Amino acid sequence: MKSNNSRDEFSIIREYFDKPVKYRHDVFLSIGDDCSLIKAKSNQLLAQTTDTLVERTHFFSNTPAEAIGHKALAVSLSDLAAMGAVPAHVFLSLTLPKVDERWLQGFCRGFFKLAKRYNVDLIGGNLSRGSLSVTVQAQGYVSKKGVLRRDAAKVGDDIWVSGKLGRAGLALQCLKKQAIVSKKILHAFYYPEPRIKLGRQLRKIAHSAIDISDGLISDLKHILTASHVGATLFLDTIPIAKNIDVRVAIAAGEDYELCFTVSPKNYKKYRSILERLHCVCIGQIESQLGLRYTEHDHRVSLSEQGYRHF
Amino acid sequence: MKSNNSRDEFSIIREYFDKPVKYRHDVFLSIGDDCSLIKAKSNQLLAQTTDTLVERTHFFSNTPAEAIGHKALAVSLSDLAAMGAVPAHVFLSLTLPKVDERWLQGFCRGFFKLAKRYNVDLIGGNLSRGSLSVTVQAQGYVSKKGVLRRDAAKVGDDIWVSGKLGRAGLALQCLKKQAIVSKKILHAFYYPEPRIKLGRQLRKIAHSAIDISDGLISDLKHILTASHVGATLFLDTIPIAKNIDVRVAIAAGEDYELCFTVSPKNYKKYRSILERLHCVCIGQIESQLGLRYTEHDHRVSLSEQGYRHF
Repeated sequence: MKSNNSRDEFSIIREYFDKPVKYRHDVFLSIGDDCSLIKAKSNQLLAQTTDTLVERTHFFSNTPAEAIGHKALAVSLSDLAAMGAVPAHVFLSLTLPKVDERWLQGFCRGFFKLAKRYNVDLIGGNLSRGSLSVTVQAQGYVSKKGVLRRDAAKVGDDIWVSGKLGRAGLALQCLKKQAIVSKKILHAFYYPEPRIKLGRQLRKIAHSAIDISDGLISDLKHILTASHVGATLFLDTIPIAKNIDVRVAIAAGEDYELCFTVSPKNYKKYRSILERLHCVCIGQIESQLGLRYTEHDHRVSLSEQGYRHF
Repeated sequence: MKSNNSRDEFSIIREYFDKPVKYRHDVFLSIGDDCSLIKAKSNQLLAQTTDTLVERTHFFSNTPAEAIGHKALAVSLSDLAAMGAVPAHVFLSLTLPKVDERWLQGFCRGFFKLAKRYNVDLIGGNLSRGSLSVTVQAQGYVSKKGVLRRDAAKVGDDIWVSGKLGRAGLALQCLKKQAIVSKKILHAFYYPEPRIKLGRQLRKIAHSAIDISDGLISDLKHILTASHVGATLFLDTIPIAKNIDVRVAIAAGEDYELCFTVSPKNYKKYRSILERLHCVCIGQIESQLGLRYTEHDHRVSLSEQGYRHF
């Protein structure tokens, strides 16, 4: 370990972030100049997204550095998944109160492990002094026909969701209350897995998709608003993790599963594929605006909201 | 003005950042989905850069919001200029301690005025609660042959610089000491102009280029290191703003002018063009590593360093 005082931005970047790697074919110039340069694929669209995680807003001060590194990348890759895109490159803007080499090692472990899993190259970024926050810009490729948009849900579409909801939201509640929380629950919150493979499979199946980062209700509403439609959710069918109330789970955020809509015409054709991908049909798109709920075929009312950023 | 308490992230984005505009032809999908989508030009490289400005690290707390909006974009456009690229799109990640609508109006005034000047579309970003900081990712196009890289300086090249150095650095010193500072000096610090047009002109003229954000010495050294060469700077020829010491000016950052190297073979051909662009020849690239200085043909020594981020 070197002394903090001797480190400048450039030596930290060299040691932790600009390792000699064989870059992807479309990377013409990476870290080390005023810009990085890519030769974007000419037959594809470039999907781009950026997200920021701020200490005490998006994660607690005692969050392991490895989890911060993982999650900062995962939330952006999750956005790519929700568009049906294949991840390609990422930029990292890191603001640190001080140079803590042990923290940097942990952060990089989480970040690069996930990057490697999805063949993502870190090709640029910057390092600043300030309150701890991490901004990631991720980009990937998707064909024009394969794009999963929020505004493409159709009346009559079935609404599907992946995974089991509620673990990450429960972890967040427990952490807030400083309550005891199991490893499995905590892992769901710290290490969400971006549903890249599912997103790719959905390109030919789904009309529209979104990732559930702000909560199922809140994010489904984005699809409804953008598509000028309404929906009914069947509460009794929503896949919920063990011992969690469905009402809490669908309002809580942090799940990073995908919610998507599929034409009922394709139900038979795609049902087995979707079920193999651990997806469940949980509702239906309707022409009547707004979101309604049923439980065992009886209409029920709910008041919970998803996560609000301000 | 609306009450702060009634605003969420999405309504702020709609009001301030997602205005109905006619987007560039290469923008397939902009703000409002999980990702934005561009159809990158197939015959060009996509140059990408990201920079963060943090309150109390990169700007003082009393900096006008308009200046923060301008400068956050200007520093990234300056990186594009240094590569010879034409700006195209930008992403904005804004972290705010609270929703202050007057501040947002000022910030947007500075940001969008500069974006409009260079035909840059804001196509994505995010808004978080936390200490004030602004991360901008900017991207633009440059042809393979036109790229200005740091690692392409050749022994014998003349070193050139644009503009007059030192005003922004002096402003920073005065602001630190809370000393009186003239409007012109302050303007140079608050509203640097990215040298986009100059960068474009240099594509066929210069071997290598960098923007002077950390100070002439510090940034020239990046060219020297990347190109495995050394240099001598002619201190008496460096264009310095009135009443500023050359030794202070070349160590101070924040100028956002371009420093570049040109083959002396092309001196006659390009001299008049470069001088019309307010550029001056200030030194020479040499095979002997390191940076040396002369003043009226006599060797002198200097100890100043450029800005260090940590």
